[in-house]
Amino acid sequence: MPRIKLIIAYDGSGFEGYQIQPKGRTVQGELEQALSVIHKGEAVRVHASGRTDAGVHASGQVVHFDTPLGIPDGRWAMALNTRLPGAIRVLSAETVPDSFHARFSATGKTYRYIWHLSDVISPFRRYFTTPSLGVKPDVSRMEEGARHLVGTHDFTSFCSAKTDVEDKVRTVESIRFERHGEELHMVISGSGFLYNMVRIIAGTLWMCGKGELDPGDLPGILAAKDRSRAGKTAQAQGLYLENVRYGQ
Amino acid sequence: MPRIKLIIAYDGSGFEGYQIQPKGRTVQGELEQALSVIHKGEAVRVHASGRTDAGVHASGQVVHFDTPLGIPDGRWAMALNTRLPGAIRVLSAETVPDSFHARFSATGKTYRYIWHLSDVISPFRRYFTTPSLGVKPDVSRMEEGARHLVGTHDFTSFCSAKTDVEDKVRTVESIRFERHGEELHMVISGSGFLYNMVRIIAGTLWMCGKGELDPGDLPGILAAKDRSRAGKTAQAQGLYLENVRYGQ
Repeated sequence: MPRIKLIIAYDGSGFEGYQIQPKGRTVQGELEQALSVIHKGEAVRVHASGRTDAGVHASGQVVHFDTPLGIPDGRWAMALNTRLPGAIRVLSAETVPDSFHARFSATGKTYRYIWHLSDVISPFRRYFTTPSLGVKPDVSRMEEGARHLVGTHDFTSFCSAKTDVEDKVRTVESIRFERHGEELHMVISGSGFLYNMVRIIAGTLWMCGKGELDPGDLPGILAAKDRSRAGKTAQAQGLYLENVRYGQ
Repeated sequence: MPRIKLIIAYDGSGFEGYQIQPKGRTVQGELEQALSVIHKGEAVRVHASGRTDAGVHASGQVVHFDTPLGIPDGRWAMALNTRLPGAIRVLSAETVPDSFHARFSATGKTYRYIWHLSDVISPFRRYFTTPSLGVKPDVSRMEEGARHLVGTHDFTSFCSAKTDVEDKVRTVESIRFERHGEELHMVISGSGFLYNMVRIIAGTLWMCGKGELDPGDLPGILAAKDRSRAGKTAQAQGLYLENVRYGQ
């Protein structure tokens, strides 16, 4: 059966996260419902590169599903978008080999974290950015902190204490900061990320920017392998899954 | 009684417009409710520079009200923002002379109209921009059309046929286009605007950009004083009241 890879974007603010669950509106639930309509009521399972939490957005999430329908690649986006809520958009579709798996074939991801630096929370960006609440961060301190995190490290201190994977060694390939008008963006790429890792990195670097944490403390925080040593988990609404990489 | 001038921003997407009405959520209704709480249940009437339609946003609407309370200017924004929904934010407050009136003292306004030029409607900007639905407009044609509208003209062709004001002569001081990433912004300033005038100008210049209308036809459309000769009224969600000018 042909396998279809989709690149999708979603506004996570109205969802209980990506992953389907017994109660509450989810991105996966909406996708599977739209696919079920196209498949005349047949259930279609969708596999994503990974879940995203409630309120977290995606500008380039990747999912796949198998289908017996011979819909050409160029028609899938329109077929799904007419059946999906405006909060979820299919950006592109492509037939891929059976060996492709949205999660297991992924070789890297890029996330974007956005703070809004105005004194008053923007009504237009309140679900799409994290307010700085008057803080004007020193971005050079955030960049200095980020340099200690880039590379291959055990990120135990930077993942939720609930994380149950054994191996917490991950490679962060790059962290860069961009200023867009009143917004500060952090763009982070890596081979893979642990649960809440991007939000804890964002929260910790924010503390460096605010002057509450010395960037030079980050090697010690990594070495401690203790979640309580890093900063607070930054709010969900500032986070975007931007890109999933496959192959080299 | 002291008169307070507020500059406010609002996300118009959840409101039935600015102006209070018997049914439905309005910006004025929310403001007056918050002020009533601060005034221990007393009704407080709020006067705006003008109404905005359902779905239209404001980044710099101006309103005023009279109050017996001696709250310092610097405290009003916080006092109101803690009682207002996140869709409405007070940006600043200032005590003004009794002679100031948000509507009658206004000497000019600036509006911004935003189109989103991506092929697929952005889930993040769907309530905040008008989708181009695949159209890649020729902005030089829009600018050429705009040049014919700048100046003092009878704008009968560019206002809702329902408009009941007698004098439809207005001065458009400037219209400029800006590209911000995937967005095209039109910024228009003038001494005053008729009902739906900015949206009809936006819709008409968009037709020039699409090649459906010759920019050179605009002088004839103005001269005809006939609403049916101009283009469609552009969608509400792309429009922002950006600034209200007082004095010179």
